[in-house]
Amino acid sequence: MHTQVAIIGAGPAGLTLARMLHLQGISSIVLESREREYIETRTRAGVLEQPTVALVRDLGVSDRLDREGMSHNGFYLRFDRTTHHLDFHRLIGGHATVYAQQELVKDLVADRLSSGGPLHFDATVTAIENTSDRARLTVDHAGTPLEITADFVAGCDGFHGVSRAHIPGELLREHSRTYPVAWLGILARTAPTTPEGMYCAHENGLSVHSMRGPNITRQYLQVPVDTDLDDWSDEQIWDELAVRSASDDQPELERGEIFDRSLAPLRSYVCETMQHGRLFLLGDAAHIVPPTGAKGLNLAVSDASTLSFALGAFYAAGDRSHLDNYSATCLPRIWKAQQFSWTLTTTLHALSDDPTDWQLRRARLGRWAESEAEQSALGEVYLGLPFPTPWRFTG
Amino acid sequence: MHTQVAIIGAGPAGLTLARMLHLQGISSIVLESREREYIETRTRAGVLEQPTVALVRDLGVSDRLDREGMSHNGFYLRFDRTTHHLDFHRLIGGHATVYAQQELVKDLVADRLSSGGPLHFDATVTAIENTSDRARLTVDHAGTPLEITADFVAGCDGFHGVSRAHIPGELLREHSRTYPVAWLGILARTAPTTPEGMYCAHENGLSVHSMRGPNITRQYLQVPVDTDLDDWSDEQIWDELAVRSASDDQPELERGEIFDRSLAPLRSYVCETMQHGRLFLLGDAAHIVPPTGAKGLNLAVSDASTLSFALGAFYAAGDRSHLDNYSATCLPRIWKAQQFSWTLTTTLHALSDDPTDWQLRRARLGRWAESEAEQSALGEVYLGLPFPTPWRFTG
Repeated sequence: MHTQVAIIGAGPAGLTLARMLHLQGISSIVLESREREYIETRTRAGVLEQPTVALVRDLGVSDRLDREGMSHNGFYLRFDRTTHHLDFHRLIGGHATVYAQQELVKDLVADRLSSGGPLHFDATVTAIENTSDRARLTVDHAGTPLEITADFVAGCDGFHGVSRAHIPGELLREHSRTYPVAWLGILARTAPTTPEGMYCAHENGLSVHSMRGPNITRQYLQVPVDTDLDDWSDEQIWDELAVRSASDDQPELERGEIFDRSLAPLRSYVCETMQHGRLFLLGDAAHIVPPTGAKGLNLAVSDASTLSFALGAFYAAGDRSHLDNYSATCLPRIWKAQQFSWTLTTTLHALSDDPTDWQLRRARLGRWAESEAEQSALGEVYLGLPFPTPWRFTG
Repeated sequence: MHTQVAIIGAGPAGLTLARMLHLQGISSIVLESREREYIETRTRAGVLEQPTVALVRDLGVSDRLDREGMSHNGFYLRFDRTTHHLDFHRLIGGHATVYAQQELVKDLVADRLSSGGPLHFDATVTAIENTSDRARLTVDHAGTPLEITADFVAGCDGFHGVSRAHIPGELLREHSRTYPVAWLGILARTAPTTPEGMYCAHENGLSVHSMRGPNITRQYLQVPVDTDLDDWSDEQIWDELAVRSASDDQPELERGEIFDRSLAPLRSYVCETMQHGRLFLLGDAAHIVPPTGAKGLNLAVSDASTLSFALGAFYAAGDRSHLDNYSATCLPRIWKAQQFSWTLTTTLHALSDDPTDWQLRRARLGRWAESEAEQSALGEVYLGLPFPTPWRFTG
C-alpha cells in the first residue's frame, strides 16, 4: 500500500494534518494504535487558541465547535484572597474557546471517515524505514501485518510514541525539565465558581478551576509528584480546593459528585531537531508543556499547519525548502509557548519552601493583577501567537 | 545634642530625606562616615526613574539635573546579532533620566550645606540605643566623641552599614540571593555606540553599553564572580565587549581610553522588617538589587519619600500609624523592583551552560523584541512605578 503521507497517530495533530492534506489533494493514511472509543473519550486539554479555532473553521469541521464551544475573554487569577479578572478580550480583542480535546477528535474522526480517508484504528507501527527515496512502515493492524510505503511520515504519536526514536540520537538535542509536582484532576457535577477558568496561587500550592459546561467542572490541585490518587478522599479534595480558592470577595466553591479523577505529572520537553529525512515530528512527539498554559493541543495543531504548508509547496511546486526548514520554522513559536508555560508554572505553583520565591511570585502576580500591559502581554500568548505559516500553499 | 531625626548616611536616601524633612519643618542631623570628596566622586548608578526626577524637582534641587541630565526614551536590546529599540516613551509616555548618582549627591550636599542643615562628614556611628522614649547615637566625629539624641533614626548607611544590625535577629527575615557572576565596569573616552543604553545578551554573557555624556561611556561585561580585575587587559576588555555587541545592523563598538574600572558582584537582598522601634531602614541598608534594572538609587529615594510622609504625619498630626506601617508600605514596591531586576538579570545574563536556559531566554528576549505589550510592561517598571505615598504630609 502506498500513500503520499503516512500519519502516525490520530490525535489533534494527525487528524488536522490529514484534513489539511486532503483539502490540498495530498493522500494520507492515518494509523492509530488505540481503538476509536479510547481516543474519543480520554480527558485531555480543553482550551483552544484563536488560531486553532480559525484553522478548524477553515477546514470546515467546526459546526459543533461553533455551537458548543464556550467563548472565554480571559481567566481569573486569585491570590492573597482577592480575585482579579484578566480580560484579554477587552484589552487586545479575541477570545479563547473552551472545547474538550476529545470532542474535537470526535469531529475530526467523523469527518475523516465520512470523506473516505483511510484511518486505521488498532494499527501499531512496529518499524519505520527512512531511506533516501521513500519511507516504509511496518504495521500490526489488529493482528494482521500491513506494510505501507510513503513519501513522508508525520509522527503525531505523542511523547511515548515510536516516531521520535527514529531520529538518530546524534542529531537530537533534547531539552527536558521535570517539576516536583503533579496535577490531581477531577471532573465534578457542579456549577463553576467563576464564569471563566481560574488559577488560585496559594501558599499550599496551585488550584485550577475550569469548566466543561454549565454543570460540569474540571478542577485541579497541585500535589507532590509521588502522590497516589487513592491517598485523597473526595472530601479531602474538596477541602483542599476550598482552602486554596478561599477569597474575601466571592462565594465559596460549590461541591458535587466527583465522577472522574486523574493524576498528571508536569514536564517541559523539546527535541531539536523535529525532522530527519522523510520523517517529521509534530505535537507531543516533539515537545511537551506543563498543562498550566493550555498550550499542548494548540502547539500540535500549529505544527500540523506548518507541515501542511510545506507539503503543499512540495507537491504543488516541487519546492522542498519549506520541508527542509520545518523544524526551524516551528521552533521559535514552540519556545515562546514553552517560555510562557514555564513562567505561568513557576509563578502559580509553590515549587519550593523558600520564602524569597513566594515574595517574588507575589510580586509578579501583583504586576499581572495591576498592569494592563502585563495582562496584554500574557493575553497575546494565551489567546495564541500567529501560526508560523498558513496551512495551505497557494503558490 | 538633640534632633528630631538622626540620619545615618549621606547617600541619595539620607540626603533626600533630610531635604524633605527640612521642607516639612522637621529637624535632622546627617551623619556620614566618609569624607565629602569620597561620596561626591564614587561611581555608582546613573539612571533616574520618573518619580525620582519628579521628587528632586519638587524638592527644588534639580537645576543642574534639568540642565545636564539626558532624557532617554528606553533602551536598546541586542541578541542574535540584531538590535531592537524598546521605546517606552512612545508606548506609555515619560522617560528615564541619565544623571550619575554622585552628581545628584553633589547637588544635595551643596543644598544641605547652603541651607545650614547639619551634615557631618567623617562621622561614624558606633552605637545606637533604641529605647521606648528616644534614640541615642554615639558618634566618632573625626576622632571627637559626639552624642546625639533623636526621636527617630533613619538608617541610610548602605548594605554594610551599622543600622541593620540594630534590628533584633528574631524579628528579621532576610531574603538573599547571590549570582555566580559580577559586572566588570569601565569608564572610557568614547562616543556611545547607541544613543541610549544597550543590553547585549550573548551566549558568552551580557554586555551593557551606557553613557555618562556625549564622549564618556560606561560599559560592563558579565564576568565570573571570582574574576580579578588585573586578569583583563584593556584590549581584552574591548575585544570581549566587541564580541558580545557584534551585530549585523549597526557599526562596531568605538574603542578609546579606559580611565576607570571596577568590579561589582550581583546580589539580591531584602530584609523584612525594615523597622524596629525608633529605627527605620532605607535603601541599600534594607535591600539590594543587581544593577541590571538600575533600581537601587530609585528604591532608596522611594523609601525616603515614604518615611518623610510618615514623619510628617507624626509631627504635624500626631498620627503614628504611617510610621508603624512604614515597612509594609515600602515592601510591595520593593518586591516588584526585585522581581523586575531578577527577571532582567536572569534573562540577560548567561548564568548556566544549560542549552534549555538559553532557548527559554531567547524566547523571552524574542517576546520583548516583538511585543509592544511586553515592552510596555517592562517600561512601566523601568520608568518607575508610583511611589507608595507622597513625600509631604498635607493633613
